[in-house]
Amino acid sequence: MFEVTVSDHMMVAHSLRGAVFGPARALHGATYVVEASFAREQLDADAIVLDIGAALAALRAVLADLTYRNLDEVESLAGLNTTTEVLCREIADRLAARVHDGSLGVGAGDLVRIRVTLRENPTAWASYERAP
Amino acid sequence: MFEVTVSDHMMVAHSLRGAVFGPARALHGATYVVEASFAREQLDADAIVLDIGAALAALRAVLADLTYRNLDEVESLAGLNTTTEVLCREIADRLAARVHDGSLGVGAGDLVRIRVTLRENPTAWASYERAP
Amino acid sequence: MFEVTVSDHMMVAHSLRGAVFGPARALHGATYVVEASFAREQLDADAIVLDIGAALAALRAVLADLTYRNLDEVESLAGLNTTTEVLCREIADRLAARVHDGSLGVGAGDLVRIRVTLRENPTAWASYERAP
Amino acid sequence: MFEVTVSDHMMVAHSLRGAVFGPARALHGATYVVEASFAREQLDADAIVLDIGAALAALRAVLADLTYRNLDEVESLAGLNTTTEVLCREIADRLAARVHDGSLGVGAGDLVRIRVTLRENPTAWASYERAP
Amino acid sequence: MFEVTVSDHMMVAHSLRGAVFGPARALHGATYVVEASFAREQLDADAIVLDIGAALAALRAVLADLTYRNLDEVESLAGLNTTTEVLCREIADRLAARVHDGSLGVGAGDLVRIRVTLRENPTAWASYERAP
Amino acid sequence: MFEVTVSDHMMVAHSLRGAVFGPARALHGATYVVEASFAREQLDADAIVLDIGAALAALRAVLADLTYRNLDEVESLAGLNTTTEVLCREIADRLAARVHDGSLGVGAGDLVRIRVTLRENPTAWASYERAP
Repeated sequence: MFEVTVSDHMMVAHSLRGAVFGPARALHGATYVVEASFAREQLDADAIVLDIGAALAALRAVLADLTYRNLDEVESLAGLNTTTEVLCREIADRLAARVHDGSLGVGAGDLVRIRVTLRENPTAWASYERAP
Repeated sequence: MFEVTVSDHMMVAHSLRGAVFGPARALHGATYVVEASFAREQLDADAIVLDIGAALAALRAVLADLTYRNLDEVESLAGLNTTTEVLCREIADRLAARVHDGSLGVGAGDLVRIRVTLRENPTAWASYERAP
Repeated sequence: MFEVTVSDHMMVAHSLRGAVFGPARALHGATYVVEASFAREQLDADAIVLDIGAALAALRAVLADLTYRNLDEVESLAGLNTTTEVLCREIADRLAARVHDGSLGVGAGDLVRIRVTLRENPTAWASYERAP
Repeated sequence: MFEVTVSDHMMVAHSLRGAVFGPARALHGATYVVEASFAREQLDADAIVLDIGAALAALRAVLADLTYRNLDEVESLAGLNTTTEVLCREIADRLAARVHDGSLGVGAGDLVRIRVTLRENPTAWASYERAP
Repeated sequence: MFEVTVSDHMMVAHSLRGAVFGPARALHGATYVVEASFAREQLDADAIVLDIGAALAALRAVLADLTYRNLDEVESLAGLNTTTEVLCREIADRLAARVHDGSLGVGAGDLVRIRVTLRENPTAWASYERAP
Repeated sequence: MFEVTVSDHMMVAHSLRGAVFGPARALHGATYVVEASFAREQLDADAIVLDIGAALAALRAVLADLTYRNLDEVESLAGLNTTTEVLCREIADRLAARVHDGSLGVGAGDLVRIRVTLRENPTAWASYERAP
């Protein structure tokens, strides 16, 4: 199996709901370094999983809706507790939608896995993987 | 599937037994950067895999028994050849025990995998994964 | 000349004032990886610049006043435009104060430079250096 | 399951064939940081997956055939579009051959997976995994 | 003193002239991770050294002339032995020209140093610093 | 001014003498990632500070005397408290000796600074710089 990963980052404010989060219940922020991985069993006719440039552009487009914002006020995230795990899933789902609408130039049927990792600081990160 | 990883480090001396280890049979040492990953299929009611703070505290507690020591003299490791692989398994097993005793605040039944990676230098690292 | 550096991080929200900041004028956030460096010409009787443990504790204490907060509402920063450069200087000044009050276990007269670097994302960081 | 990874790098020129590659169709170059991973279910009698020194030597030998060269003119790659994905597979296949010829000191039957990752720049990398 | 650094990368082919370069006399390539630093004694009215966005854009513009190319055929480098050191100086000089033409939004008289670092692989890098 | 840096690592055991070291007074160990920097004002006829290959070889030779050992028993370090700072100075001095004996292929008179950095874990490192 082959896998290609592209990376970018976003800088956001947010707060978390739930006693477990302790001080992170207050409004604070994070730089999330975001890695998006796309896996497939066989390479295409150009000998790639997908176009790295297209993948970077798709990731940048997804993050552009979130970066430099207070996630507590982002309408498309309303009702979500924006934990690192939830943000991984949200970004993976948005990338999957872009696979399905053809903007990554690879068919959803060709991919076997999409995985998104968010690194929030040097000691903690999370990832989410799903079918494309 | 979701996965959360936390990281810490330990600084130890040790020696290895076996001709294959060459110069590493002599007493030497390592800084091990340790990454502990916990995976589950569904998030809990707080939208997390587990409390990152609790995971960091559990990892710190496990490493506190080993760091700043000569592993050749650590009683709980007696009889083990403390290769990077064995240390991965040892730390994973100790973290699993802490999952089972409830100190990570997540049920063993909720997790699907525990993985521990030890980075011993910029050119070599090892990992071990097990059921929780 | 010798220099010792210790590192920690903080996760904050803030907004910036000034047309130059563009989207960063909105409330957003950052993980700042913080490096604090202390330089001296000669080592002390223990053959160190200063106690790394004491330096890490001092840095942690300085960051504890800022992390998991919205810097726009931190009283001790009132009136400041909390750019990365300003935060570098603020943290360096607070560490210098701790040198002067003796909590780092090294005399201000023994040090020749304090430098603080804040890494805000993989493509941008800033630093500030001052006399102790 | 246990996995050991070793890392090295190579510095090559090459060009890519296909409209999708845009500017990368021109002759350009890359430093590829190469990670080779070997997994097995049980450790051997020395409590290792394989000898890290042997793995580093095997990886160095494989890369020695490619580094400081223009891949467009490397005979053993003739006819291949040397994308990052293809290079991952090529290096994995060459390492697998070295497992089979015994030069890594571990039997192919003992391993369950070989994986090779090539990091081409801070924002993009690829990997390929295969049976040994 | 304050210093701001921005980072980007370029992927180039080239060859080096001189017996000292051994295998690097052949056409090969590199990913250069490029860091550009700008220092000044006092912050401006916005409390910054310079606009990080403008600095990133200037660096990207400078690298756009070089990336995805064979440096042996880049006219503006004709006659140069494109060692890492020379590329550091070339990029620093081009950035200095952009400071002088006003495109970084900071006066050359305000800056006290420009420094460029090129990381060519995990074990080697070079830097060049000059007056602005 | 130009500066070239090369990097390697060593894995050692040691203990420290002095109340300030707390738990590090016990025999423990470290992986030290070692960076050696060489600065000069003008490049040589090959447009380099020095031969990177020669610098890497010199650093490897210096570290070969220390790695995989218990520093408490290394004769050439007898009487030294092997703090990170002291090891920086020791390695810098040994590299300077190699500059003086000609094995780096650069004259001591051509260099203006030698600097050695040792990274002992992700949160602490030290450096020492001297005239060549």
